[in-house]
Amino acid sequence: MYKLVMIRHGQSAWNLENRFSGWADVDLSEQGVAEAREAGRLLKDAGFTFDLAHTSYLKRAVRTLWHVQDEMDLMWIPVVTDWRLNERHYGALTGLNKAETAAKYGNEQVHIWRRSYDTPPPALEPGAKAFADDDRYKGIAVPLTECLKDTVERVLPYWHEVLAPAIRAGNNVLMAAHGNSMRALVKFFDGISDDDIAELNIPNGIPLVYEFDAELRPVKHYYLGDQAEIEAKMAAVANQGKAKP
Amino acid sequence: MYKLVMIRHGQSAWNLENRFSGWADVDLSEQGVAEAREAGRLLKDAGFTFDLAHTSYLKRAVRTLWHVQDEMDLMWIPVVTDWRLNERHYGALTGLNKAETAAKYGNEQVHIWRRSYDTPPPALEPGAKAFADDDRYKGIAVPLTECLKDTVERVLPYWHEVLAPAIRAGNNVLMAAHGNSMRALVKFFDGISDDDIAELNIPNGIPLVYEFDAELRPVKHYYLGDQAEIEAKMAAVANQGKAKP
Repeated sequence: MYKLVMIRHGQSAWNLENRFSGWADVDLSEQGVAEAREAGRLLKDAGFTFDLAHTSYLKRAVRTLWHVQDEMDLMWIPVVTDWRLNERHYGALTGLNKAETAAKYGNEQVHIWRRSYDTPPPALEPGAKAFADDDRYKGIAVPLTECLKDTVERVLPYWHEVLAPAIRAGNNVLMAAHGNSMRALVKFFDGISDDDIAELNIPNGIPLVYEFDAELRPVKHYYLGDQAEIEAKMAAVANQGKAKP
Repeated sequence: MYKLVMIRHGQSAWNLENRFSGWADVDLSEQGVAEAREAGRLLKDAGFTFDLAHTSYLKRAVRTLWHVQDEMDLMWIPVVTDWRLNERHYGALTGLNKAETAAKYGNEQVHIWRRSYDTPPPALEPGAKAFADDDRYKGIAVPLTECLKDTVERVLPYWHEVLAPAIRAGNNVLMAAHGNSMRALVKFFDGISDDDIAELNIPNGIPLVYEFDAELRPVKHYYLGDQAEIEAKMAAVANQGKAKP
């Protein structure tokens, strides 16, 4: 039986301020650190162990991973990083407050930008210095915005080319990533339709365990931890894009 | 021009207590954390950057690396870990106080155990559970003790097979490791004799920069930072194995 454990980073400074983060390299909040450490304790207490970790180029995911490694006494495992696990690129919305954006453009429009499968947010200006001049992205065709479909198109090759072979080779793999890079994988694993994926929300800092059969087909998945707390967190994610009443 | 930057971990809890650490997985002390962060600031201020990091299976080296990455805003680079960069295995001396051991066996004997090239400290009992039953060493012929020669015999293959090819491929490589895994490399780089290597001491938490020519022959090396402070630290390392006067 194969497994993959994924974790969305803990609360970031911009989750706390309810701003669109995307590729902005925002760090964890104090609560985010506590969530990451709690996730590490949960995984350890449940008997999980890992040989290998994969994460994005963004420090909120890396730091979440580091805290989990620290709590599990797994600081010694190798850490593979790749931009393809990054959060969806939020284009010109990057840095804007979600509720204020909703007040300006309407809840409906913001819900479309946040959750539509194939409508990207407004793009950054071509030549925008935002990420293209960052060392970590040299040699990469940095997008100016992304819809979830665009994110799927970079995450799935990472699954097929990197993660799946590592799992087949017998490694226990931990992946620390983001709401939308995880939604991209979950959509694929569970065959969720382009419409239905809009309503799928991934809570921050909760380990999500996928179990696979010998053909690497998912047979079961579950979040680790207190189920009522997890549901509350998923509802909070769903409500982030609404204007304040 | 090729480069390798190496850093010995910052002060550990057992450096502070003057105990032989070897493969015991001792964490950094508060001072060790401060040293690691200062090393990161020094490297950043001097304009260094890295594409890739290598470290041991021991958390005092990994945590040193993490603090350097954090200070340099390089949390996104991949981290390769390998037991071959571990500290020398200290055998039955692991955990003992260096000054007390010297008071019992004499300064001379302890200097031999610490610095002789080919006399290992007394071995652990065969079948000792100390490290052999640790997950991270499964599949590895875990030694029961090591002299520096033994350490050289695992570190040099890592240089030739892993580090050198990565450097030749154009990567800026940072290595966070230990007093003796670094002494093994420095002995090779600078052609230091088996006798003379006894007097070479590597200070904690100070970046050591090696520059190489196109054939990867060392042309220059230097420690980054305040030279008087570095000399004081090297003298402190040299004096650790002496009985208190």
